[in-house]
Amino acid sequence: MKVGILGGGQLARMLALAGVPMGLEFVIVDPKPDACAAGLGRFVQADYTDAGALDELAACDCVTCDFENVSADALEALADRVAVRPSAVALAAAQDRLFEKNRFAALGMDTAGYAEVNSRTDLGSAVERLGVPAVVKTRRMGYDGKGQMVLRDGEDLELAWRALGEHALIVEQWVEFDFECAITAVRTADGDMRCWPLSRTWHRDGILRLAGSLAVPGGLQAKAEALVRRLAEDLDYVGGLTLELFAHGDRLLANEFAPRVHNSAHWTIEGAVCSQFENHLRAVCGLPLGATEARGMAAMVNFIGRMPAPEAWLKLPGLHWHDYGKAAREGRKVGHATLNAADSAALKSLAPRLEGLLDADLLGELDSALGEG
Amino acid sequence: MKVGILGGGQLARMLALAGVPMGLEFVIVDPKPDACAAGLGRFVQADYTDAGALDELAACDCVTCDFENVSADALEALADRVAVRPSAVALAAAQDRLFEKNRFAALGMDTAGYAEVNSRTDLGSAVERLGVPAVVKTRRMGYDGKGQMVLRDGEDLELAWRALGEHALIVEQWVEFDFECAITAVRTADGDMRCWPLSRTWHRDGILRLAGSLAVPGGLQAKAEALVRRLAEDLDYVGGLTLELFAHGDRLLANEFAPRVHNSAHWTIEGAVCSQFENHLRAVCGLPLGATEARGMAAMVNFIGRMPAPEAWLKLPGLHWHDYGKAAREGRKVGHATLNAADSAALKSLAPRLEGLLDADLLGELDSALGEG
Repeated sequence: MKVGILGGGQLARMLALAGVPMGLEFVIVDPKPDACAAGLGRFVQADYTDAGALDELAACDCVTCDFENVSADALEALADRVAVRPSAVALAAAQDRLFEKNRFAALGMDTAGYAEVNSRTDLGSAVERLGVPAVVKTRRMGYDGKGQMVLRDGEDLELAWRALGEHALIVEQWVEFDFECAITAVRTADGDMRCWPLSRTWHRDGILRLAGSLAVPGGLQAKAEALVRRLAEDLDYVGGLTLELFAHGDRLLANEFAPRVHNSAHWTIEGAVCSQFENHLRAVCGLPLGATEARGMAAMVNFIGRMPAPEAWLKLPGLHWHDYGKAAREGRKVGHATLNAADSAALKSLAPRLEGLLDADLLGELDSALGEG
Repeated sequence: MKVGILGGGQLARMLALAGVPMGLEFVIVDPKPDACAAGLGRFVQADYTDAGALDELAACDCVTCDFENVSADALEALADRVAVRPSAVALAAAQDRLFEKNRFAALGMDTAGYAEVNSRTDLGSAVERLGVPAVVKTRRMGYDGKGQMVLRDGEDLELAWRALGEHALIVEQWVEFDFECAITAVRTADGDMRCWPLSRTWHRDGILRLAGSLAVPGGLQAKAEALVRRLAEDLDYVGGLTLELFAHGDRLLANEFAPRVHNSAHWTIEGAVCSQFENHLRAVCGLPLGATEARGMAAMVNFIGRMPAPEAWLKLPGLHWHDYGKAAREGRKVGHATLNAADSAALKSLAPRLEGLLDADLLGELDSALGEG
């Protein structure tokens, strides 16, 4: 079976690494000559709208994406020729933060207060209504903290308008939360659906730094599963998806969703029976889903900018190294490591040895999330 | 870091799949155009003695092999230019069954009785001394049951001599055993060494059919580790190796060893903290070794000749599919599946669902090896 992937970054790379053992072959399309998934299949260096590239994708058994900002038009044209999973409609639903929030609201999911902003006046009245601090974001094309600013006072409004005012915007209320988490799920074309254990997530400067299959208060898992199920069924979704959430007491606020494999669930490679990458492929290829149960407990550390030298860390029992083979660049996700242990106590006793890979405050957060072990 | 591999079969393929996430790159040399590891690195289709291929290998950081019958001369020439691990000496030690047995004996390891055979007269006196049944094998180039015959009477001797008499031969005494097993170990250049839990193994027609990290009587693990350690230290071995053993009561007889990653330990991909493939690469690249502890319990089924359709089997929780991407051919290893479960009881309850993948007699052997669960 041949799978086409639009995008050749680390997500495509990890998809291919999960798919090759299953006998799948890949056609990977990316305009960048140094796309890090290029070596794991037939690589077509071309724009996503290139006719030759689309012909190669159309000759696959199915097509999927490693990022959500693929042109919906290109995808819809492709969908006339080959199964595109998730669908162009599902991708479009995640491409615009306003439509995304409107959908959450329509599905009865709690969100932070938000307002559409199309003018300087809109911006002022949105902040007046929602209060400060608030966050202004471009409705489209933002990721890893790009295209967003925090608003605290009138001066921030001026700066934000100057920086982002040419785009369609959304203002979101600042959310008080106990912690951030994300639920990753996978759904087949005939509606079979599985969820992995919730990931706890920690961001810095808008970029995910730390995530893991760490304990959350009892009821939240079922609540998160109900939310992601509602969303996936509404979109008739096929493949893996992640819904990012704020937890506050026993409430979960929907923040955003990603119609693809997601960084918060990279720990599933070693920390779950079947990883998000394998199950995404199983779903888009029409194969039965694998079990999503956790295997022990896992914490994942992102490497931003450049890879550390691995020698010292490989000595840690249960540490798994993931170097995406990307050139170093500030703010770029270049790899991750997952520390996996049999249970919470074992992970807690190993976690301090991540010092040097993880800032002290995040080490503290991890230790505290691991509770009494 | 760039690793050269002589041989581009499924072992090279699984090495590359373990190494790519670690940021390793591969140069894979194989004379066959359809070598199944070809897509996972730079593929050089050439004979192992081809000057251009050797130049490409010499430009790597280290070189290893995916099979043991590489010309020792070619390897030694290469070793003047780049680190070859394991060494040509270690490979040569496994290439000749007589020298292999002599080494076992010199190291004080028990083996079946054996005799060197260079003439029809030698064959007769060997069988006279060792008794029937006995097994005659070519000293070199045998694998998967090829180049060997069972001797039960005078007629068998005639047939065997006609079929194999042009080769240097060894006759081995028929061994009574309770079960077959194999110990896989990995050793670094500075002598750090780890062993995985013993694999129970089951062969049919000389080909491994079933293996797994199943329970063995208590003392055997330590005994097997002592044997493989003695062998690895004697050879100043670097990389992964497997020693195949016959267990009889509390005795272990050394049968043969493989100076490479080995089929009996494929279950380590999902069933151990660090797989034999990753640890082999860590050792040959001079990186610290990963933990070799089991993760739950695993049974691996080989697919011989052709791959089954995966759909029915992927439904089994904890089943992992490995399709080597090879064309179907009688007697050829084309893939395997590993069934992994939290413990012996869980594996025992799932194992009957392998019916159809595994012959009834092997299903029975597996069930019985899993004991009371």
